[in-house]
Amino acid sequence: MSKNPEKLRPKLARLSEALESGALDQARRMLNRGLAPVDVAHLLESTPPKERDVLWELIEPELQGDVLQYLGEDIQVEFLNRMDAQQLVSATEGLDVDDLADLLQRLPNTVTLEVLASMEAQERQRLETVLSYPEDTAGGLMNTDTLTIRPDITLDVVLRYLRRHERLPDTTDSLLVVTRSDKLIGSLPINRLLVSEPSMLVREVMDTDMLSIQATAEDTDVANLFEKFDLVSAPVIGSDGHLLGRITIDDVVDVIRGDAEHQMMSMAGLDEDEDTFAPAWRTSRRRAVWLGINLITAFMAAAVIGMFEATIAQVTALAVLMPIVASMGGIAGSQALTVLIRGIALGHVSGSNVRWLLNRELIVGALNGLLWALVIAAIAVAWFGDLALGGIIAAAIVINLLFAALCGTLLPVILRRLNIDAALSGSVILTTVTDVIGFLAFLGLATVFYL
Amino acid sequence: MSKNPEKLRPKLARLSEALESGALDQARRMLNRGLAPVDVAHLLESTPPKERDVLWELIEPELQGDVLQYLGEDIQVEFLNRMDAQQLVSATEGLDVDDLADLLQRLPNTVTLEVLASMEAQERQRLETVLSYPEDTAGGLMNTDTLTIRPDITLDVVLRYLRRHERLPDTTDSLLVVTRSDKLIGSLPINRLLVSEPSMLVREVMDTDMLSIQATAEDTDVANLFEKFDLVSAPVIGSDGHLLGRITIDDVVDVIRGDAEHQMMSMAGLDEDEDTFAPAWRTSRRRAVWLGINLITAFMAAAVIGMFEATIAQVTALAVLMPIVASMGGIAGSQALTVLIRGIALGHVSGSNVRWLLNRELIVGALNGLLWALVIAAIAVAWFGDLALGGIIAAAIVINLLFAALCGTLLPVILRRLNIDAALSGSVILTTVTDVIGFLAFLGLATVFYL
Repeated sequence: MSKNPEKLRPKLARLSEALESGALDQARRMLNRGLAPVDVAHLLESTPPKERDVLWELIEPELQGDVLQYLGEDIQVEFLNRMDAQQLVSATEGLDVDDLADLLQRLPNTVTLEVLASMEAQERQRLETVLSYPEDTAGGLMNTDTLTIRPDITLDVVLRYLRRHERLPDTTDSLLVVTRSDKLIGSLPINRLLVSEPSMLVREVMDTDMLSIQATAEDTDVANLFEKFDLVSAPVIGSDGHLLGRITIDDVVDVIRGDAEHQMMSMAGLDEDEDTFAPAWRTSRRRAVWLGINLITAFMAAAVIGMFEATIAQVTALAVLMPIVASMGGIAGSQALTVLIRGIALGHVSGSNVRWLLNRELIVGALNGLLWALVIAAIAVAWFGDLALGGIIAAAIVINLLFAALCGTLLPVILRRLNIDAALSGSVILTTVTDVIGFLAFLGLATVFYL
Repeated sequence: MSKNPEKLRPKLARLSEALESGALDQARRMLNRGLAPVDVAHLLESTPPKERDVLWELIEPELQGDVLQYLGEDIQVEFLNRMDAQQLVSATEGLDVDDLADLLQRLPNTVTLEVLASMEAQERQRLETVLSYPEDTAGGLMNTDTLTIRPDITLDVVLRYLRRHERLPDTTDSLLVVTRSDKLIGSLPINRLLVSEPSMLVREVMDTDMLSIQATAEDTDVANLFEKFDLVSAPVIGSDGHLLGRITIDDVVDVIRGDAEHQMMSMAGLDEDEDTFAPAWRTSRRRAVWLGINLITAFMAAAVIGMFEATIAQVTALAVLMPIVASMGGIAGSQALTVLIRGIALGHVSGSNVRWLLNRELIVGALNGLLWALVIAAIAVAWFGDLALGGIIAAAIVINLLFAALCGTLLPVILRRLNIDAALSGSVILTTVTDVIGFLAFLGLATVFYL
């Protein structure tokens, strides 16, 4: 496998040529020997369903497991559902325990049991440990390929012990020091092993203040710890202090990416696991729900306008200008909302400083409200030649931007307390508020004045 | 420094007690000796400006540099601007070259020169190498603390050479093999060094197919390579193949986080470097621009409505229902837009499959358009008792959702080709289109029918 990215593009070009010209044997050779599994996975993810199925059939069974672990969840499930237990057993041979556990969690229970039954006792036991924790916890994220040593041996013995291995587990940056009963008592960073006198004891050089992670810890918290302390790997322990496995930075990077995608996708009511090339029918069904929720809020805004039909019939300029009031409130509110959602995610926002933030946002809302109220009023007066209309819309803009600030600040704080995902539901609720308040303020003031 | 997160909270509580009761000496002691620099930085970022300034003054000058490197750019700049060159020199002592370079890039040139002048020749030369590349390239991201070895020595010699160090650079997972003229020819992973026979030559065990990164590569591409190959560190070379430094995973994690924040924040027209507790005045000015841009698009929508004032005067139900048409288009469009922006960021979308995606999105738009058009029409007819109104709004919904699909799919592709950030400008342009088309279709059809 070459790590040279420049060599990848011509390979992919030749592959797609081979596919188009029907030279399937050549394409099969390239898929199975010319490309790294991670590149094959990326190719599959970049291919529409029909061509993707053709490609998948060309991949040799032993390679399918390797490729599967790099695929997004949506596509994984699709391919997994087509394989029988026998195929799964051969495909999943040689996978890391944590990747295998991720795959098995997407399978029906009966198939999982069959795969487990086909494994060696030790491997099965390890896998069962990982499977006993939810996927989004430290236990579900960990690997069980830890290298453990005892505290009372010399570093020289450790070096000779390591040399007996053909290779060390990937991303091994420290050896874990355990008691006879597998209780974690320290860690020996490889880099410290290398600079220390070989005659010293592990106990003398090991790090006893190392970070260890409870198996039940949430994956997002694990990611924060890795980031904060620039970790490459960290041991995972059970509630009794026994070593269960370790988490490596590559899995943490996946968690960070996943969280970021979740935040971005859920703002549009989408799922981060969604296949970019999901078929039209499935896509329609998934998106319909979000459109339906937004339709309810749109009808709430319409109901508010409906209360003022008589006013609009008399002054049609109101109908022309009213979307401006609602839109400016929505934009200002979403700015406050985004800053708060990020602040909460970063751990900057706590009970004690929400009051300061609310105060700041209200001042910002007032300042920007006044500024743009003047601009909008001037244009409205010039457009419709009605001085009163200018005053009414200016007042409505200021009112709506203040409500937007209030709502944008408090909404994420309240939703968090209720354990509701603010990225998903925050913007819907916010726009409902700014639409309703915007129409109510503008049309209400106009009704008082004109009728 | 303890890595135990459970111990942090009571410490912070005691610190804020000490601050509130005015026990500044106690607070100073806790800040400078009780907390890790990364925790102090987080505390500063979570504190409103006035209290933040008090905290900052309590931090000892030698520690300020350590804390500075963990702060967000916005806050960094603020504190840096208050320090004179002498303070900067003492604060930046002992920082890694890459972190130091990041800080210096935020300073006026004269101050940078003063700091450079105060350094030792070798250190200065290293720093100047890093400074010669933009911050968002591999060169700006790299550190110069590489451990290099020659190919023709035995591993035993390498081990003895390492033992002469007091400690190895952080996150050292491989030694870089260079020629006499510093040309990179291979890499010796530490884990391979540990399992190989000490009598072998470096040349025999080194990896010659290792990934090396050009100093001019963009940081986002570097992050993708690290993710794809599960790297912990990678060498950076100049265009002539000479070793310049290395990039470590902790800096890559920062890039990934930064990219994710940029995407999220720019969707609301915000800057990802913004301080959560930025003062009201600065916040207002920054956000005003985005509101102004959105105001222009809101007036475009208003202008479209203005064309149909006569129709609205006759049928006021149109004013009540028209926001629904615009809003449904906006939501459907932003779903397509988000899927495309993510697909492009992941490298799934290329010229050859955009046509498939456009086709899929149009089908999705048509299906969801028809579904919700029927629902909305039924409600409209029941509400206003006007069968024609139902037909008109149904047609407008379908038209707008088709345009939303078209625009949501093609916009990010076009913006990318023009090198414009789709996360920033995509949603503004999209909403303008769905507002204008929505109002045009709905009010236009109504005008044809009613007038």
